[in-house]
Amino acid sequence: MPELFNLVPPDEARVTWFASIPFSVQPETMPTSEALGRVTAAPLRSPMALPAFPRSAMDGYAVRAEDTLGASEGLPAYLTVVGEVPMGQAASVEVGAGQTAVVHTGGMIPSGADAVVMVERTQKLDEEDIEVLRPVAFGENIINVGEDILEEEEILPAGHLLRPQDLGGLLAVGLTDVVVSRRPRVALIATGDEVIPPSQQLGPGQVRDINTYTLSGLVQRAGGVPWSLGIIPDRFEALKSAAAQALAEADVVVMSAGSSVSVRDMTGDVINDLGAPGVLVHGISFRPGKPTVLAVCDGKPVIGLPGNPVSAMVVFGLLVSPMLWRWQGLARLPEPRTIKARLARNVASVAGREDRIQVRLEQREDGLWADPVFGKSNLIFIMVKAEGMIKVPLDQTGLSAGEIVEVQLY
Amino acid sequence: MPELFNLVPPDEARVTWFASIPFSVQPETMPTSEALGRVTAAPLRSPMALPAFPRSAMDGYAVRAEDTLGASEGLPAYLTVVGEVPMGQAASVEVGAGQTAVVHTGGMIPSGADAVVMVERTQKLDEEDIEVLRPVAFGENIINVGEDILEEEEILPAGHLLRPQDLGGLLAVGLTDVVVSRRPRVALIATGDEVIPPSQQLGPGQVRDINTYTLSGLVQRAGGVPWSLGIIPDRFEALKSAAAQALAEADVVVMSAGSSVSVRDMTGDVINDLGAPGVLVHGISFRPGKPTVLAVCDGKPVIGLPGNPVSAMVVFGLLVSPMLWRWQGLARLPEPRTIKARLARNVASVAGREDRIQVRLEQREDGLWADPVFGKSNLIFIMVKAEGMIKVPLDQTGLSAGEIVEVQLY
Repeated sequence: MPELFNLVPPDEARVTWFASIPFSVQPETMPTSEALGRVTAAPLRSPMALPAFPRSAMDGYAVRAEDTLGASEGLPAYLTVVGEVPMGQAASVEVGAGQTAVVHTGGMIPSGADAVVMVERTQKLDEEDIEVLRPVAFGENIINVGEDILEEEEILPAGHLLRPQDLGGLLAVGLTDVVVSRRPRVALIATGDEVIPPSQQLGPGQVRDINTYTLSGLVQRAGGVPWSLGIIPDRFEALKSAAAQALAEADVVVMSAGSSVSVRDMTGDVINDLGAPGVLVHGISFRPGKPTVLAVCDGKPVIGLPGNPVSAMVVFGLLVSPMLWRWQGLARLPEPRTIKARLARNVASVAGREDRIQVRLEQREDGLWADPVFGKSNLIFIMVKAEGMIKVPLDQTGLSAGEIVEVQLY
Repeated sequence: MPELFNLVPPDEARVTWFASIPFSVQPETMPTSEALGRVTAAPLRSPMALPAFPRSAMDGYAVRAEDTLGASEGLPAYLTVVGEVPMGQAASVEVGAGQTAVVHTGGMIPSGADAVVMVERTQKLDEEDIEVLRPVAFGENIINVGEDILEEEEILPAGHLLRPQDLGGLLAVGLTDVVVSRRPRVALIATGDEVIPPSQQLGPGQVRDINTYTLSGLVQRAGGVPWSLGIIPDRFEALKSAAAQALAEADVVVMSAGSSVSVRDMTGDVINDLGAPGVLVHGISFRPGKPTVLAVCDGKPVIGLPGNPVSAMVVFGLLVSPMLWRWQGLARLPEPRTIKARLARNVASVAGREDRIQVRLEQREDGLWADPVFGKSNLIFIMVKAEGMIKVPLDQTGLSAGEIVEVQLY
C-alpha cells in the first residue's frame, strides 16, 4: 500500500516543531576553567574594574608628562631616577617634579607620575640620571583603572557560547564559577531486526549499527550528552517500552527506525502513544530524509529519523542540532564552515523539494571544484568520501555544472 | 637598553621552526567509537565488502526483470507471490519465472531474483498474486555486494581527522578499534611575579593568570592535552627547573613569559639552556606577538609566548595550533570558519609587518560590516568583545574603510 506523506518544507517543519517545544534554559553552576563550549545561562557582569590599578603598557620610566615637554635628541629632558616599581607589588616610590621611576610592562604606576616614557626613547647618563629624548603626553603608555572592563560592566550576555578568551576574561575578574545551561541528555534508540552491534560477526541478512555512533558524534558537537539505549527489535511493545524509558530519563529522544514503511509507521504510532501532542510533522520535502518524524511528547522533543545512515545524519544536522543549541539557550547558531567552489557536474532535483548533495573537493589549475559523490541509496561510504555538502533550494530543479556553489564543510 | 630583535616574517618563522622539529607520528590503538576528532595514523582498508549480501533499496517485490518486460497500467505483468524475506535473515525463498517475493528496504534479495519493483508500482490482486504496472531493468533497486565498499578498498588515508561519518563507516565493516596518532601533551608554564591564580584575591600590583586557561582551550581545540605547571616566579633557576620538568614529561612546552624585556630575555636564556638546538626564531614581524620565541630542545618544540593574553592567543593560533596538528600527522589543516564583511573603519599597519585586528560583526541594512575593536595594549576584553579577526598582509600599510575583508570567526 503506498504511504501517504503530507510533506512539509524543512524550514516550515522546523518552525512548527520548535513552536511546540517548551524551551526553557536549565541553569547550573560549574568551574569557569571547564566551561569551554558551554552556553551562558544569564548575563555576566564584572565584579571589579580591570586593571585594578593604573598599569604601565611599556618597559620604561614613569614621569610627569610636563617634565618632558619639548624634549628632543638635541635638547633632552634630564630626570633623576628615584626608584623602581617591582612587579606584583604596590609602587612605594613617589615621583616628584624632575624625578622618574623605573617601571616594567604591567607594573603599577607610582604616585605622582602621569605618563610612561618607553625605554627606547631614553638614555642612561649614570646610575641616577637619564635623558628623555622625546616628549610624552599626559596618560601616554598608561592603562587606566577600568580601561579593560569597568565594575558592573556586562562581560557576556546570556546565550553566549563560551570560547577560550571568554574563560580568560571571566577568570581575570575572579569569576571562577559560571552559570551555564545544562547540557541536554539525548537518548539514542536504534531499531531494526537486521541491525547488530559493530562488535558482532555479521550473519546472513544482517548489518551493523551505524547510527548510534554517527549520531553520538553529532550530539556531542551540538553540546549534548549522548545516551545509547542499544538496538531494539522491530516490535511495537519493545520499541514503546524503550521509548518510554528514554522519555522518562532523557531530555530528547532520537529514534532511528528501519527504512521499511511498516517500521516507519510503527515509529509514528509508538511516538503518538508516548505523550501529547505527539507527532507534529510526518515527512519533509527534503532529500535525503523524507520520512522524518518530528514530535513533542510531554514537553520533550522526540524525533524519528530515517534508518538510512546518510539521511539520519543529514536530517540530524538540519533539524536536531539547531534544536539542541536552542534547548541550551544559544542566542545565535555558530556559522558553519563553508567554502565556495565550482560545481563539476549537473545535479538534478525537483521543484518543491530541498536537496543536499555530498561533494568532494578538487583543487584544479583554474580553482576549486566540488564534485558530487553519487551512489545508490545513500550508502554510508558516500558520506565518508564526501568533504562537504551543497544545497539545492526548494524552488530549483537542479544546479548546473560550472555554477559557483557554497560547500558546507564537514 | 633597547632590545634588538631580528624579526622574521611569520610564514618564514613557521617554516624555519617546523624544519627543525623531528615530526614523527606515534600510533596508538583505541576504540573507534571514542575516536571522534582523532587523526588516523595509517591508511585504513575494509576487511570486507559492504553490503555483504545483495540488498533491496526499496520496499517492494523481488522479481526476474524479464518477467516485467513491457508491463503497463493497461497491460500489467501478473506474478505469483511465493514468500516474504524477513529482515535480518537469509532469504530462504527462491524466485522462479512468473514468481515474486516480498522484500523490505535493506532486506536480502532472494535467489533467482535480479530486480525489485517498488510497492507503489504494483497492485495486489489477492493473497497470492500481484500486478506489476511498470517494467524494471536488470539490477534495478538492488544494492550489490561491495557497492558501498569493496573488500581491501581504502576507507581513509593516514592523516585524516575522524568525523562522525568516518566512525560509522569503520564500525559498519567491523573495525571496532582504530590506530590513531597519540595526542601531544602540552606543558603550559605561566610566569610573572605579578601573576596569581584566578581563585585568589588581588593584592596591589597583582593580576590573575589568564593564559593558562585560554591556552588550555586552544590546546584542546588543536587535539592536544593541556598540562599546567602553574605560575612560576620570574627567577632564572625557578623557570629553568620548571621548564626542564616540562620538557622531560611533555611533548611540547609552552611558556607565556611576562611582557617586560628582562623577563623575555630570561625566557630565551632558559630555553637555550634546556637543550639543542635551542632558540631558532626570536621575534616575528607580526602584531600582536612580536616577542615570540620558537625553539626546539632535545627534539621537542618549545615556545615562548608573549605574556600579553591577546598576543599569546593570536600567536598560538598562528603557529602553535598548526604545529600540534602536524605533530599528530594531520595531512591538511581544517579550513577556518570565515565570513566576508565590509570594513567599518580604516586600519593602519606598517609594510613589512603582518597584523591581526580583532573585529565585531554588525548586520546593517546594506550588509555585514566588520568593526575593529580598538583598545590600548591588547586588553583581554578586546578579544572577549571580538567575534573574529582580520589580517593585514605583510606588504600592506593598512586596510581602507569599505573594503571587503575576510573575517576568521572565533
